[in-house]
Formats: sequence, structure tokens, C-alpha cells
Amino acid sequence: MRRWNGWGDDQFNLELPDGGRQFLQERIGKAAPLSDTSLEAACAQVPASRLPQHPDVVTSAEDRVRHARGQSLADWLAMRSGDFGVFPDGVAYPESSQDVETLLRYAEEHGISVIPYGGGTSVAGHINPVNSESAVLTVDMGRMNRLIDLDRESQIATFGAGTPGPLVESQLRALGYTLGHFPQSFELSTIGGWVASRSSGQQSLRYGRIEQLFAGGRIETLKGTLDIPTIPASSAGPDIREMILGSEGRIGLITEVKVRVTPLPAHESFHVVFFPDWDKARTACRQLVQNRTQLSMLRLSNATETETQLALAGHPALIGMLESYLSLRGSKDGKCMMTFGITGSKRQCNNALKETRAICSEYDGIYTGKKLGDKWAAKRFTMPYLREALWQLGYAVDTLETATDWDNVDNLLNRIEENLRNRLNEKKESVHVFTHLSHFYTQGCSIYTTYVFRVADSYDETLARWKTLKDSTSAVIVNNRGTISHQHGVGKDHAPFLPVEKGELGMLAIGSLCRTFDPAGLLNPKTLVE
Amino acid sequence: MRRWNGWGDDQFNLELPDGGRQFLQERIGKAAPLSDTSLEAACAQVPASRLPQHPDVVTSAEDRVRHARGQSLADWLAMRSGDFGVFPDGVAYPESSQDVETLLRYAEEHGISVIPYGGGTSVAGHINPVNSESAVLTVDMGRMNRLIDLDRESQIATFGAGTPGPLVESQLRALGYTLGHFPQSFELSTIGGWVASRSSGQQSLRYGRIEQLFAGGRIETLKGTLDIPTIPASSAGPDIREMILGSEGRIGLITEVKVRVTPLPAHESFHVVFFPDWDKARTACRQLVQNRTQLSMLRLSNATETETQLALAGHPALIGMLESYLSLRGSKDGKCMMTFGITGSKRQCNNALKETRAICSEYDGIYTGKKLGDKWAAKRFTMPYLREALWQLGYAVDTLETATDWDNVDNLLNRIEENLRNRLNEKKESVHVFTHLSHFYTQGCSIYTTYVFRVADSYDETLARWKTLKDSTSAVIVNNRGTISHQHGVGKDHAPFLPVEKGELGMLAIGSLCRTFDPAGLLNPKTLVE
Repeated sequence: MRRWNGWGDDQFNLELPDGGRQFLQERIGKAAPLSDTSLEAACAQVPASRLPQHPDVVTSAEDRVRHARGQSLADWLAMRSGDFGVFPDGVAYPESSQDVETLLRYAEEHGISVIPYGGGTSVAGHINPVNSESAVLTVDMGRMNRLIDLDRESQIATFGAGTPGPLVESQLRALGYTLGHFPQSFELSTIGGWVASRSSGQQSLRYGRIEQLFAGGRIETLKGTLDIPTIPASSAGPDIREMILGSEGRIGLITEVKVRVTPLPAHESFHVVFFPDWDKARTACRQLVQNRTQLSMLRLSNATETETQLALAGHPALIGMLESYLSLRGSKDGKCMMTFGITGSKRQCNNALKETRAICSEYDGIYTGKKLGDKWAAKRFTMPYLREALWQLGYAVDTLETATDWDNVDNLLNRIEENLRNRLNEKKESVHVFTHLSHFYTQGCSIYTTYVFRVADSYDETLARWKTLKDSTSAVIVNNRGTISHQHGVGKDHAPFLPVEKGELGMLAIGSLCRTFDPAGLLNPKTLVE
Repeated sequence: MRRWNGWGDDQFNLELPDGGRQFLQERIGKAAPLSDTSLEAACAQVPASRLPQHPDVVTSAEDRVRHARGQSLADWLAMRSGDFGVFPDGVAYPESSQDVETLLRYAEEHGISVIPYGGGTSVAGHINPVNSESAVLTVDMGRMNRLIDLDRESQIATFGAGTPGPLVESQLRALGYTLGHFPQSFELSTIGGWVASRSSGQQSLRYGRIEQLFAGGRIETLKGTLDIPTIPASSAGPDIREMILGSEGRIGLITEVKVRVTPLPAHESFHVVFFPDWDKARTACRQLVQNRTQLSMLRLSNATETETQLALAGHPALIGMLESYLSLRGSKDGKCMMTFGITGSKRQCNNALKETRAICSEYDGIYTGKKLGDKWAAKRFTMPYLREALWQLGYAVDTLETATDWDNVDNLLNRIEENLRNRLNEKKESVHVFTHLSHFYTQGCSIYTTYVFRVADSYDETLARWKTLKDSTSAVIVNNRGTISHQHGVGKDHAPFLPVEKGELGMLAIGSLCRTFDPAGLLNPKTLVE
């Protein structure tokens, strides 16, 4: 069953390998876990619902607890401590666009706030209700989880917006197709959520971001139904698709999503190259993408992430052999691991592999074959479970991400890492920080930083540590030409930082768009914009 | 010097080859040209300007005549007959964003309508002033035509918005780069115009549409300056870039454009394949793009376009040899010509050529090498001059274009051609109609139809013939799942058809966006939306 207070399936636990704990202890010290509250205790706190009765609305305490929070570290601390603050007043589980329409009419009539809920995987507070005088209804889209139509000639699939990643892929795979959208949250996040929050997947180099995959669909708004037709490309004025992408529930509830799909590839493999230093590694990656080499996935870990990953990888024999081999080839401390994927026809894959190896060689990259790449692919969606393992040891882990132009990548990366690493100095706490680049574009790339710190001896102090780290680094990002988010969205946590990026007139445009569809501000209040 | 009443440079004339005239006579009959008015006569009609004096505003009759119309067939008829209807009251030639800001303040103060003018190449009425009580100022961006900055690492170039195609490419080429954006209007159209009207170029398969190339920039609005930062990709809410793309001057005046550029390719070549019939040809093209073969350009002419192009191509020896060769290989009437381009490293080009030939062979394509491809490349920007040659013979020529999903391509193409071919039957006039597909996407492609008809014995009747053809076919397009424009934009001519495509709520969103930035409706009124 789904964990009510953390990530994923509660039958599945990822063990931290031997040596992993010691690795962290050496860097940030021994830790002691905080104790978790129980689901029963959490339910006991849920106040009476303020919602007028409706046959489609459930007001049970457990439904409301399970829809109160996402997966940010602040959400974890709330769920683990039991200090939720606010709960939705009820949850609805619509089964059709008509059901959603009915719920919107009910909400409008009674002045109820509406929060659309996909997989509940937001790490930026998208689905958290806020304290207000209005009652709050969370609309869980999970029952609209079917492949409705597949047009093989145009390669367009239509899905219910609540379809989670595994059901998107399994329903397509049965017919010989893939969407190819694999965010880290794949196991739980939904296709509607991907559109609403402008998601990006691990193989975006081949398949594109959700912006490129989203071909049209149906959105229920307070002004009526918005049907976006599928047209491959158009010069007919501003693109309505682009107003829905990233609208985070403020314009309407996405109920059907049409996406561009691809026949299952004939070949796919993942490979690993090690570079002697960061400069060569980063330059090789830039050259690869600017050369338009047909890769499907590319990820470059900096030296600390490489070291951390090898320490936590959990296959010591393989790693030992690898370290010996790399050392023989002259690789030293400071090496950086690049993982890449190739996907397509045999000819395309052969060609991409040749091009990649040639470019990597120019920058002294040591190609190590597919073993580590296979490991990456096998574990690609299990990393969020590591958070649970670390939590049990008393370590809090969170990630921050952005994207910027190539000329600014090192500057921004260094400022982010430095800020995180030193921010708790006053409290005499160390933070273990490491970064990878992914989602490469000719113009720049995303920067994805993980930070681990010890929980304090209280939830309040742990939350204070996180808030200090998160907010100060968010400011570093937007003040240094980074986007406040490349793939997590804005939600409520990033909203205060958005105006720096969009500017006064950009915010005016977004705000006006939301008000046009929702003058009373009933839809997902405080998310994205005030 | 630039022709005041038609396309391009008046020193350059494209002769219709021997046989071309006969080819048209056989299909739609002998024609007699209408007589053109003179520039002097046109200037003599220009009424007094209603603009309050401003040092940066020119009110000479010739400036106003030269900025009154674009390049639609209706515009041609107005310029050739001298029946302009409305002229702008004056023209400004700003040299900086500050100049534009000053002009906007002047316009706001005096309630003046403002029309941004790039290359004046619109074929949809974007830059035509409309009859109104407000005075009209046309702002010609032509003096802001410099490459301002090139960031080689991030591959971003900054241009003044009035830079025309040839100056975009020559300034980049001097530094070893290309933008790779080659619309048919390349010779005259500007980078700011491309953004404002969501343009697409002939090599969009490699370089992308202007949506993919436009990285950010500066827009002067009545609410202040909108600066869009360059970020490679972001999930931080709706993308402001996408609100400017296709805004057609309704939100503000684009003054600086930042674009994603590419180092000049090591190799580039263009090739031609003939297919025995349309079905095989279309399917081969779909397979090529869905296979993600790295082509830079792809164009498929239907049988009538193939026949017309070979008749009008003007190199009879080559065509004769080709026809003999094709006939030897079994090709008959009904053959369809496919032109493709490959661009990139030697390995990429070799690979793309192999993949393309393999797929074409599966559909009985006969590869004929580079000769005809080279001809296409050499003449790629001269086709608009053919319009002048045909006009002198008494033939009017116009184009219509759309895009749709693969499953609908034949349906829509046939309806468009059938409507055009038969629409003047009542008037006992024939229309010569032919089509190519271009701008290919995995989901579908654009459909580009050319139609030629005889001018009538009056301008009024000629305009009536055109209006019948244009409006009825525009309705066919939007009522059959096509976009009202894949690459020409909306302007005033397509505006009545836009609501079918965008729907009531889509129009609400666009209208509200325009009003947010321009509550008084001063900017390019009647363009895009009412």
C-alpha cells in the first residue's frame, strides 16, 4: 500500500549499503532519527469538514490526511511530526470530465477552493491547502487513468489526466508504443500533473519535455470546457497549450491529455564514461549536445556526486574492479561520471555510440561500457526510496534544481553548492552537497543538487534548518540567471522567487491569465501566483 | 531599389521559361494583364496626415505609400490598382529601444494606433492600417538591424528586431555561425517579424521553428519594458516567450531578439527522389520523420506540383535527361518529387543519406542525386519573383497553407484543392492548383497549396475572385482540423477564422492577454483578435 507519510509503496525498502552510513558519518557526523507519528494520531487531529454535503465528496479523516501534503522535505516533516497545519475539507474522486464539471459548479456555488491532485508528488507545495476562510476540496484525478485512444498514424495517444507513469507506459507498451516521459517521480506522478507543472523526463534528449509531448486535450474551467485541438504546429497566434503547461491548477482542471507517442525502440542501452576532471567532463557534454548527437539521455555527476554514488551504489565488487581499472588508466580523485543513453534503430544507436566515444576521447574520457549504465537504468525510479532509508538513520535529504545557459553553469553551480555547504556553519552543522547536470540543451543545461544534513533534535529546528537552506539557495538561483525550477514547478514554495525571473510584466501576464478564467481565485490559491 | 508595388528588388526579374506560358494557357486559358498605376499617382492620393508633429515621425506621401500594404494578393491588387483605401498617417524609423519607448508614449498621449513594421512581407494583412478615427503610426524597425552580441559558449546571438534575413545570416556567418531560419520571405522579412508571427523556415527539421530558436529578448509595451531572460528550459509557470510568439504586435513592439544559433555545418547537400505515386511518397515521408532520421529539410510535391515545377524549372536539358531516366526506371505520370536536405558532420550526413535512401527504396522511390537538389537550393528565395513574371502575363498567383495530423493530411489536402479548383466554375474560370507537404513532424505536416488564376478585366472582379477562393478555402481548412496558418500568421485576413481553431475560451485567453498590456487597443488594431 502507498505510504501515507513518505514515498512509494510501504512494502518496498531500499537498504543503505554497508559503508554508506560510514561515508555520511565521516562527512556530516553521526545522526539520530526523530520519531514518527502514527496515521491514527494524524487522523485524530483532523477538524470537522466545512464542506456542504455532496454525494461525490468524501470527508473521512484518512482521505483528508492522505491528500494534505506532497513530497517536499517540509511535507515530510509535517507528516512525520503530525503537525500538518491545514487539511483539505474533503476529497472527490471524479471518473469523467463531466464529474469534474459538476464539482466545479458545486465549488463555484459555495465559494469552495479547489485543489487538483494527481500523484501527490509535488516537492514545491502545489497541492497543500492553505489556511483560509473558504473550505477546500481536493480533486484526486486517480480514477481517470485509462488510455482512451491511440492514433497510430499520427502517433497520438489520449489519456485520462490521472494516469500515473507506470499505467501510461504499460497501456502503451501493450500496443507497441512508448511516451518516453520518465521523471524521477514516474512511479506515482500523473500525466495531467506533468502537464500542469511542465515536467521533464530523464530521456528528454530523445522524447522532449512534456511541452513537446503535450499535443492538446481537455481542461475544465470555471468558464466552461477548454478543448485544445491537436495540430502539429501553428503560427496562428499565441499557443493555448503553452498557457496550460505550467498553469498548476490555476486556470482549470486538466481531464484529458493527448500526447505524442513513439513506437517502442528497436534498441536501447545505457553507458558510462569517466572523465579526469570537471572541466573536461562538462565541455564534452556541451560538445555532445551542441553536435546534435542522437542521445536519449545524458547525465554528468560532479566529483562529489561521483564519489557519493560509488560509495552508496551497493555493488562493491563491481565498483572495486572499476576503481582498479580507472586507476590503471590514470584516473584520480576528482573524476566525474557521465551516464548516457542511446535509443533508436540499430544504425542510429551505432552511430550515436561512435560519435559519443569520439567526442569523449577528445576530453580524456574513459569509456567503461554498459555495466554501470545498466545499474543506473535498473534503479532509475528507486532513488526516492533512499530518502526513507536515510530518514531512518537521522539524515534529511532534499534536492534543488535549476537550469541556465552554458556560460553561467559553473558560476551558478558553485554558488548553489557553496551556499548549501556553508549555510549551517553558524549552527555548527555540516551539509553534504553534490550535483549533476542533466537535461542538456544546445543553450545550457539543468543543474540538480542534492543536499544531506542531520535532523535536529526537534522537528521545529529541523524545519528551520531546511527553510534556511532552501530559501537562501532559491534566492541564489534567481539572482544568478537560473530559473527557479527546471522540472519541479513553482507551487507555493517557489512562488516568492518567481517575480525575479518573470519580471513585473511577466507576472502581470500570468496573473491576468489566471484571473480571466477564475476571477474569484477559487482554483489552487497561492500556487504559482498570489 | 525595393519594388514599391510588389516583391523584392526592382533590378531583378525572373523570366518564365519557354513552355511555362504555354503550360498555363493549356490549363487555365490565355490571359491579359491589368495595367499598373504609378508610384506618383499613388502618392497623389495620400490624404493629409492626422498625426501631431513629432521629430521622429515622417509624413511624406511616399513613406506612407510604401508602408501601407504587405504582400497578400489583395495587397498586390491594391498597389497595382492604386486603390489603397487607407494609408498610415506617418512612419517612424527608431534606432533604439529608447526611441520605441518614446514613440509609445507619444502614441498613448495622443490616442494614436501603432503598427509595428518589419519587412512588410505579411501575406495576411498584419501591417495594413484600418479605417478608424485614430491616427495611425507605422513603426518601421529597419534601422535596428545589427548583431548586438554573440555568446559562443551558450550559442546565443542578440539582434536588433529589424534585422532582415540576409543580414542575420551574413553577420553570423562572418563569425562562423548560422541561425538556420529560412522562410520563403527570407530576403525581406525580419527577425522580429518572425517572432511576432511565429514563422517557420525551410530547414526547420534541423533548426526548429522560430519558437525553438527564440530564446528571449526585449519588448516595449504600453505598460513598460518586458525583458525575457534566456533560460534553456523551465518549469516555472507558463512561458512568457510563448505569449510574445504570435502576438503580432498586439502586446508590444519587439526591439531585441535573442536567438539560439549553430556553428556553420561542415556538410550540407540537397537531394531529390521520385516516387511512383502519392500514397507511397507520403508514407515514405511520414516514415522518415517518425524514424527521427536527421534531415535538415524535406519537401514533397504532389503530382501536379511535380509536373508544374518540371515545366517551369527552366533547365530543359537536365529535365529531359531526368524524364528519360525515370521513364527507363518505370516512372509514369503521377510521379511525385521529394526534395531533402542533410546537414551536419560528415558522419551524420552519411548516416542520414543511408537511412533516407533505405526508407525511400521501401516505397519504390528513385533516387536521382543532387542535381535537382542543388537547383532547388540555388533558387530557394527567388520563387516570389515568379509572381511578378506571372502578373505581367495576366496570371494571379497566391498560396494557402495549414498543418494537420497525419491521419487527416489527405482528407484536408483534397478538400483544399477541390475547393480551389472548382470555386470559380460558376464564372467559367479554371484555377490551376498544386500542393506540397513540408515542415514535417512526427504528428503531421504542413500542407502548402499554390493556386493560379487569370486576372479578370477589372481589379474589382479580380479581387472578388481572390476573396471567393481565399475565404471559402480558409473555412474548409478550419472546419477540417487544420490550423488557419502554419507559417503565415493570422493578421487581419485570417482573424475571422481563428475562433473556430482556438475556441471561445482560447480567444478569451488571447484577448485578455492583449487587453492586459493595451487596454485602449492602440497596438495593431484588428490584427489577430478584434
